[in-house]
Amino acid sequence: MTASDKADEQRFLEEYNPKDYLSPLVTVDVAIFTLIEGRLHVLLVKRANHPERGRWALPGGFIDAGQDTTLSEAAARKLEEKTGVTAPYLEQVYTVGDNTRDPRGWSVTVLYMALMAHAPTAAFVDSVADTRWWPLADAMGQDLAFDHRQLLDAARQRLSNKTAYTVLPVHTLDAPFTLTQLQQAFEEVLGAALEKKSFRRRILSADILDEVGEAPPPGGRGRPAALFRAKAGLGEHAFVRVVGEGK
Amino acid sequence: MTASDKADEQRFLEEYNPKDYLSPLVTVDVAIFTLIEGRLHVLLVKRANHPERGRWALPGGFIDAGQDTTLSEAAARKLEEKTGVTAPYLEQVYTVGDNTRDPRGWSVTVLYMALMAHAPTAAFVDSVADTRWWPLADAMGQDLAFDHRQLLDAARQRLSNKTAYTVLPVHTLDAPFTLTQLQQAFEEVLGAALEKKSFRRRILSADILDEVGEAPPPGGRGRPAALFRAKAGLGEHAFVRVVGEGK
Repeated sequence: MTASDKADEQRFLEEYNPKDYLSPLVTVDVAIFTLIEGRLHVLLVKRANHPERGRWALPGGFIDAGQDTTLSEAAARKLEEKTGVTAPYLEQVYTVGDNTRDPRGWSVTVLYMALMAHAPTAAFVDSVADTRWWPLADAMGQDLAFDHRQLLDAARQRLSNKTAYTVLPVHTLDAPFTLTQLQQAFEEVLGAALEKKSFRRRILSADILDEVGEAPPPGGRGRPAALFRAKAGLGEHAFVRVVGEGK
Repeated sequence: MTASDKADEQRFLEEYNPKDYLSPLVTVDVAIFTLIEGRLHVLLVKRANHPERGRWALPGGFIDAGQDTTLSEAAARKLEEKTGVTAPYLEQVYTVGDNTRDPRGWSVTVLYMALMAHAPTAAFVDSVADTRWWPLADAMGQDLAFDHRQLLDAARQRLSNKTAYTVLPVHTLDAPFTLTQLQQAFEEVLGAALEKKSFRRRILSADILDEVGEAPPPGGRGRPAALFRAKAGLGEHAFVRVVGEGK
């Protein structure tokens, strides 16, 4: 670009006002999952404002151009503002946008899927009347706001698909945990039983866990169980072979 | 929702004006691939307007809330308006949004990956100075507009990842084609040679092709080659086992 082109572009940008154009509404929504007493739960918020007031929904909200620098930061911010929790693991699932999903106008939402160890939640802003961890089946049975039932279903599918070849369920456990607890987390997410020996071989050969001690044997008898935590910085990028393939 | 709640929501919506809020710019961008003389190409457009005037870019543009009903319709419309081509196969890759990728302001783009048999292209709107099918390596070597080099790279990776377990490259060929031509398309997308017998067994057992005749043998000698076309309605949802795994 020549200097004159550059100056010309500069003038264009100075005169450009985004408010001159009607842009779609842009939101982020987060389906965050955890395990409570071994069962998969999802966090929902009850809407205190129009539209869809009184309905349960995924936590989320509008991008704030003055506050957010990226979409994933906006997702983390909205989650924390509305529910008080922070997600150690957050990934983008997909984006839905059309002229019917929100009665306020053409609306785009970027859906995120998140995982965390169980923690309490609470409503922190006026736009939220209540927050609650729901057993997944109960949440799917609700008449959720907007198209959030479809969004929740897509996030749930992403989680279970990826659990076949990643170690995502590790993010639903408090450390330290035993391999039995980790296997139960995988089984709950997959909805299927796994063969113990092959599960352990795969997890250990993936080299994603640090052994950090021993739990006393249940009832004081037998061998103690080894305790583990995920290696630092473990995200989705630690792949094991497809779990369950050797059943 | 009670009738009074409903009336209250109705009043809220009547008073809601999306233009009262500063919403991010929302665009769609399309990385569309084809094979020309057996080599993978991508379609780029040369920008005629600010910003980034004169740079090559992926075809795309703003959502038009009055014209588009969904994101994927907007992607198809922008592709056709800017280049004259229509994509028989289009899938969403991911969404990028932040406060730096576009000098006009907070900007979100939803990236699509598309495939088609080779067809000519031409600039149809004032915002496009030129259109051209580029060999992929040459396109990646360009100083593309905005973050389009990253977008193109993500689309290229999605295509090659999915080619390991779907029949996507079938969409790059004009029908009818021989199995040898289809194998060459897979090999070009994957950047790797495939074993002929196992490729044929997998494609044929996936039951995704209709046999529609025979091509005369090259040079008039030997056995004629069977000609195929993809079954009607074939999208991405025809999975073969991972190609190349039996090499």
